[in-house]
Amino acid sequence: MAAYVQDAIMLLGDSLTQGGWEAHGFAQRLSYVYARKLDVINRGLGGYQTDWAIPVFEQIFAKEHEQHHVPKVRLLTIWYGANDASPAPSPQHVPRDRYKTNLSHLIHMVTSPASAWYSPDTRIILITPPPVNTYQWDGRVFDATKSYAEAVKEVGLKENIPVADVWTEIWEAAGKDEKSCERFLSDGLHLNAAGYEIIFNTLIKIIGENYPELHYDKLQNVFVPWSEVNVADPRPSLVKRPAMIGLAQL
Amino acid sequence: MAAYVQDAIMLLGDSLTQGGWEAHGFAQRLSYVYARKLDVINRGLGGYQTDWAIPVFEQIFAKEHEQHHVPKVRLLTIWYGANDASPAPSPQHVPRDRYKTNLSHLIHMVTSPASAWYSPDTRIILITPPPVNTYQWDGRVFDATKSYAEAVKEVGLKENIPVADVWTEIWEAAGKDEKSCERFLSDGLHLNAAGYEIIFNTLIKIIGENYPELHYDKLQNVFVPWSEVNVADPRPSLVKRPAMIGLAQL
Repeated sequence: MAAYVQDAIMLLGDSLTQGGWEAHGFAQRLSYVYARKLDVINRGLGGYQTDWAIPVFEQIFAKEHEQHHVPKVRLLTIWYGANDASPAPSPQHVPRDRYKTNLSHLIHMVTSPASAWYSPDTRIILITPPPVNTYQWDGRVFDATKSYAEAVKEVGLKENIPVADVWTEIWEAAGKDEKSCERFLSDGLHLNAAGYEIIFNTLIKIIGENYPELHYDKLQNVFVPWSEVNVADPRPSLVKRPAMIGLAQL
Repeated sequence: MAAYVQDAIMLLGDSLTQGGWEAHGFAQRLSYVYARKLDVINRGLGGYQTDWAIPVFEQIFAKEHEQHHVPKVRLLTIWYGANDASPAPSPQHVPRDRYKTNLSHLIHMVTSPASAWYSPDTRIILITPPPVNTYQWDGRVFDATKSYAEAVKEVGLKENIPVADVWTEIWEAAGKDEKSCERFLSDGLHLNAAGYEIIFNTLIKIIGENYPELHYDKLQNVFVPWSEVNVADPRPSLVKRPAMIGLAQL
């Protein structure tokens, strides 16, 4: 069984999050830079939207009374919209207003002291859905996804949560041309390595600006670098330490 | 905080394990194929050897009385030797006999009913160190690492634990030529993407042969595929299930 050694970054979302485990995906990239500091827990479920995310999140985020047994989620990314923006009557469609309410609900589950899932140590980043390239992917509408990306920014402003606006980052990198988005999308909806590079860089920039104490450069290895092991008497030098410098022992 | 949703694969080792988070590394590849089924917990610590692994493992593997709070480790890989095989008087050097004793000690911690860390649900795979290419990497001896790879096979035989013999797999893929090992090694000691592909394929083959119930194809998603969500009444269809089919609910 895995003991509680490292705190965690939790990635909540749909197939764009699940695909973060691809080579060069943002989960892989985060795992690499946060190795020995924070574990990355990928809770991306392909095809899901925010109506379905709420009962899922109730199960994957620990309730307050369980929290002393399990890794703290130091950072939570919430990334939906690619499916919510499907046109009705798709079962994946969530109307824009309810999408916004659902995002706020997920945030309040973590930030509201009245919530059973209240977790004041968890920092949150919202991520906008990327642009769809309808030349590549049938069944989505370019302006609908754009409008859902704007909805995320409205929620971020209202809830005072930073937003990784990857819609705009990719749109600008593509020269504001829908067809050119194919440089960042494998199939018009999902990201390729170049697309995930933008996600990763945007997240790291936001971490640095909003939650600098969580930037990987500010964290120490939970177990010391091998050159700091006391060779004559290793055991005391091999006691785990918190990754966040200045925190008491776990 | 992250609730207990998925069981885990734990990777215990040195820099070869830590580097598994590189793009195309074996941790990334395992995470991708086991997404929504088992989490991958990478406990690779660069530079470490088996003397130091024991006090570390005492902290990262849960004791029996803690095990009901935390994810079960369904599969544990143990991969040391690249540093143990350093020539004395390097502080990383562990004599071959003690290396074997240390590997057996790590195994017994999990498999012995008398151990505080006893975990009968955990399956174990030993991994041999890969060949070193001393044309690329100074400070290791080709025959020493070969001898430590053989030591792992001796331990596997004695303890009845399957061995991923990546030394032999890479050696044969390189046409049994030390210099040609550079096709699989980035610097003579560490693996590149082609090297990690061999590690991944060897592990999956051993899982299929020895622990077929843990092969990713035999596991179901903890949360149903989105097409199975009951759209009219989603909540009951969104209750987590064990990834191992036939097991009771977590």
